[in-house]
Amino acid sequence: MRWLRYSLNGKISYGILDDGDKITAVNGDPLGGYEKTATRLQLADVKIEVPIVPSTFYCVGLNYVKHISTEGMTIPKKPDVGYRANNALLAHGEDVIIPADATRVHYEGELVVVIGKKARNISVDEVKKCILGYTIGNDVSERNWQASDRTFWRAKNSDTFKPMGPWISTEADVSTMQTVVSVNGAQTTCFETADMLFGIEEFISTMSGYLTLHPGDIIWMGTDGSSPNLQPGDRVDVSLTGLGTLSNRFVKQELS
Amino acid sequence: MRWLRYSLNGKISYGILDDGDKITAVNGDPLGGYEKTATRLQLADVKIEVPIVPSTFYCVGLNYVKHISTEGMTIPKKPDVGYRANNALLAHGEDVIIPADATRVHYEGELVVVIGKKARNISVDEVKKCILGYTIGNDVSERNWQASDRTFWRAKNSDTFKPMGPWISTEADVSTMQTVVSVNGAQTTCFETADMLFGIEEFISTMSGYLTLHPGDIIWMGTDGSSPNLQPGDRVDVSLTGLGTLSNRFVKQELS
Repeated sequence: MRWLRYSLNGKISYGILDDGDKITAVNGDPLGGYEKTATRLQLADVKIEVPIVPSTFYCVGLNYVKHISTEGMTIPKKPDVGYRANNALLAHGEDVIIPADATRVHYEGELVVVIGKKARNISVDEVKKCILGYTIGNDVSERNWQASDRTFWRAKNSDTFKPMGPWISTEADVSTMQTVVSVNGAQTTCFETADMLFGIEEFISTMSGYLTLHPGDIIWMGTDGSSPNLQPGDRVDVSLTGLGTLSNRFVKQELS
Repeated sequence: MRWLRYSLNGKISYGILDDGDKITAVNGDPLGGYEKTATRLQLADVKIEVPIVPSTFYCVGLNYVKHISTEGMTIPKKPDVGYRANNALLAHGEDVIIPADATRVHYEGELVVVIGKKARNISVDEVKKCILGYTIGNDVSERNWQASDRTFWRAKNSDTFKPMGPWISTEADVSTMQTVVSVNGAQTTCFETADMLFGIEEFISTMSGYLTLHPGDIIWMGTDGSSPNLQPGDRVDVSLTGLGTLSNRFVKQELS
């Protein structure tokens, strides 16, 4: 099942995407419960919104070997949890605004896990049943700020730096996915989810030893490879097997 | 005005605290608008809840000189923004659970700023009108994990590690406040908000150059001094001039 969060006439709702481009409108949402309605919509007639706004926005900072070596970091021995910020979330199809003083902006295509059920102290075997589904994230990063600042606040959490979507897929074989990133239609990065250092089950089970995961929380699972220096006008497409394509254009901030 | 978020008969509401211990119930909330009702309650008859659950939970990692030197860090030259996580929030009067494998748990008493109005690209002079009010935070930290892990996830964001409250005060002279922390009634730390490296106006104005602050976002302004190693059974009181006292007991996690 594919859960789409969309707006129509100023109202944000959830719907179920089927037959490729049809939406069955629902009352309710995938976390609190829902009923299908008789209303059918066309995907082209609605605005796609960020598929979920989490209570806590988690990520895995370093989870693929090639990316870690590219960034000059050492390979972590255990899963440490990172954070991103809701202000930076951006929907599929919206523009990433490159800040006026940014000079080295990269993409990072990532698998995103969406939590469906409250979880604390769960074993590796119990993780899957706490997951609602999966979507795609682009962990946009300004590399000079990432190197110069003590934290990632503007390097990774400037407004519009966290595109996510286009929808949540509840079924996916996350062990055999390819992540393919293209800039202006030409493939620039390709990697396998099978190459993660810390898999979804291990990571979430470890987290749950110290913290409670809540329905709607999201975990971005990290990236591999490197990115070209993105330029104003570039369009970045992040595709994951079975999940669709997250597409955003990059434009330069205009100072008023 | 003091905004209290409380629960009664399983329902969470906002109310206005007056005459010391009386609550005027309202319809609505301080961010979206409200109307007073004729219902009056006694503070002792309700459960105090966390005064706000933010969309993004910001903090200032290093903002007082003595604390920075105690932690062996260098004094930052510019304000870099940190993050904490909603899973860790805890109300006034609730118990901080010391994880079974934690060995060096410290308090950090902090002034908390609550954002009232959406803000982007604002000057230092415009900051005050975007603030709803102020409350108190205790940035509980496990120092061994803070030193050993790549991130602060379990060192600072284990469940119950972020007590906040008891209420939001809309008027406060933040430039002349004293923060006093006591353990089991004996004062252990005292410092002045006037000693912040980066003041509220400078910090928020800088943040707003790259990100949008939303109503309900919170910013924890950092701590000074050091803490004893807290033991199960200890009660920590954090008092800020004019804001009240945030009080929590520390207990050891019981493994089932």
